Amino acid sequence: MLNELKPKRRFLMGPGPSDVNPRVLQALSSPMIGHLDPQFIQIMDEVMDMTRQVFQTKNEFTSAISATGTAGMETCLVNLLEPGDTAVICVHGVFGGRMCEIAERCGAKVVRVDARWGDPIDPAKVREALEQCEPKLVAIVHAETSTGVLQPLGEISKIVRDAGALFLVDAVTSLGGTQLKIDEWGIDAVYSGSQKCISAPPGLSPVSFNTKALEAIDSRKSKVQSFYLDISLIRKYWTGAKRVYHHTGPISMVYAMHEALRIVLEEGLEARFERHMNNHMKLRKGLEDMGFEFVVAPEYRLPMLNAIKVPQGVDDAAVRGRLLNEYNIEIGAGLGDFAGKVWRIGLMGESCTPNHINMLLGALKNILG
Amino acid sequence: MLNELKPKRRFLMGPGPSDVNPRVLQALSSPMIGHLDPQFIQIMDEVMDMTRQVFQTKNEFTSAISATGTAGMETCLVNLLEPGDTAVICVHGVFGGRMCEIAERCGAKVVRVDARWGDPIDPAKVREALEQCEPKLVAIVHAETSTGVLQPLGEISKIVRDAGALFLVDAVTSLGGTQLKIDEWGIDAVYSGSQKCISAPPGLSPVSFNTKALEAIDSRKSKVQSFYLDISLIRKYWTGAKRVYHHTGPISMVYAMHEALRIVLEEGLEARFERHMNNHMKLRKGLEDMGFEFVVAPEYRLPMLNAIKVPQGVDDAAVRGRLLNEYNIEIGAGLGDFAGKVWRIGLMGESCTPNHINMLLGALKNILG
Repeated sequence: MLNELKPKRRFLMGPGPSDVNPRVLQALSSPMIGHLDPQFIQIMDEVMDMTRQVFQTKNEFTSAISATGTAGMETCLVNLLEPGDTAVICVHGVFGGRMCEIAERCGAKVVRVDARWGDPIDPAKVREALEQCEPKLVAIVHAETSTGVLQPLGEISKIVRDAGALFLVDAVTSLGGTQLKIDEWGIDAVYSGSQKCISAPPGLSPVSFNTKALEAIDSRKSKVQSFYLDISLIRKYWTGAKRVYHHTGPISMVYAMHEALRIVLEEGLEARFERHMNNHMKLRKGLEDMGFEFVVAPEYRLPMLNAIKVPQGVDDAAVRGRLLNEYNIEIGAGLGDFAGKVWRIGLMGESCTPNHINMLLGALKNILG
Repeated sequence: MLNELKPKRRFLMGPGPSDVNPRVLQALSSPMIGHLDPQFIQIMDEVMDMTRQVFQTKNEFTSAISATGTAGMETCLVNLLEPGDTAVICVHGVFGGRMCEIAERCGAKVVRVDARWGDPIDPAKVREALEQCEPKLVAIVHAETSTGVLQPLGEISKIVRDAGALFLVDAVTSLGGTQLKIDEWGIDAVYSGSQKCISAPPGLSPVSFNTKALEAIDSRKSKVQSFYLDISLIRKYWTGAKRVYHHTGPISMVYAMHEALRIVLEEGLEARFERHMNNHMKLRKGLEDMGFEFVVAPEYRLPMLNAIKVPQGVDDAAVRGRLLNEYNIEIGAGLGDFAGKVWRIGLMGESCTPNHINMLLGALKNILG
């Protein structure tokens, strides 16, 4: 009845979580301390400082929401939107669609800018949308994990700034794996996840808000609909001279984040981005040599999430099942429109090594014959 | 700049988190696996099964929200309340007040039933409130961590049932430490926390909803305002033959919960409740011998959270600081009206041992002279 916990080791090459460094697993098992212990306050400060470095931002409020990436998405939207506000939301995969869903639950009027799955959003379409409404916020996914598209942000950021709207970016899959400059790129609010290219366990969502975003929150007419995700309360817990209790911080997860961020910064951001790109090119060559086709055009491919077409006549679930059961390798299935048609191969953080690539290519060759 | 993580071991005798068993710390560092891995599905099933046993319920939807106890509170309220609904909320401390705050953010009309801090809620006042309104829901805190009151639930449950309302109970601090029978006591929805008498790290909120509560959710006119906490979506991820992706489960935290629940059930609920009561009596005798006074009358005292008055002329913060810095013992400060006036001594789960009591009493004697 009371089974012992003994999960078999996997090689995680799906859309996240990615493999976790043994140092991070060890950090998780550090002694428990209180959430208002001065030791923990210092650890929170260090996590904020390292998160700023990884986001390449000076934003004071740069911390981690005590829940997973979807809660980070919800945090940004419920704080920045009020009932009746208009939000322009770019949709080129599952996660853009999810932002619309959440924005609507905030009582916002959502104007969608769509792209075909596998394509990036066309800046001209964003401009067009902004000529026809005056949104409080424009939101877009930087690395669409459901399709494998890396969305260029420069031109869209300029269009949004010129329109005077807040620019919200989903960096769940891009943070720590590809270039992302919050301040330089004019991003007002951003959220990410712990379990992708940062390679901590899932359970935290790094976020950053600049002054403009915080002012928008401070000048709300109504209370944020979520107490748990209310930035005005979370700020008082994470920052300031006297920390005010809001919820019980998830101590062990913050430990893990601390160690994972140290590992990211020890490697260095530029070196880490280069590693992700080099391994992506190696995987790409291996897959193309086997005859696989990518979903996304070369110039828009995510290095850390490779979406490839399931070859005709190949049983999607059977192959993924054999990879998992015979080789302990997890790859991702297609989501939504791509279900059954696409495999998503992650090369994120600790899972982004030549050994992972060689294991996967070898296993696929064995299985597909 | 990149400080190593090396928290000093503490003895956690505050309002939570409590000490964590080394087996649970070890479970945290088990290999990472995917959140849709069949191995993880089985672990989720086992966590649900063990959580049902600990809640003493047959409710199928008994799982854990992927965030801390406050998110569990919010989950219950945002799912069970819609704008315009009336909620009767009993307030005898900070957490009842927090429920009012969240219910108002749901657009509900809140009718408060108050008791003086340190007293339980009087069932007659609940009856009175229910004669004057027809609420959808009545909510109450079972173990008020801010005051140390154990709220008797039997009579109030009957009053609520007779009025046809849903009965929501906050069992954050009571679960696993004192008698709590969800089904037998007619509780329709309940939430708790991982880091109190269950002695897992903070970061998960066990919840349980019975059929009546789920039907109330199914017959909502409006969508739940939170996507992350939407039970209709979370149910499809945690239960059913085909699990539907909603968010990335916090794998390591679920591992920890699995091991912590095993330890609770190995000990047995009745033995665990008895241990909490025996240690409470031992601490009580020691404190009373030293001249300390309890805030709460004997018949309503929580065994796992002992609220005592800070003696006249004693510097609250200085003593707590010395306990922490010289003895590595954490006790809790007073919250709200009790700030500076009350200490809260936790005896929760792994922190509920004669050794903890002897250490604390000895340290207090050394400090107070």
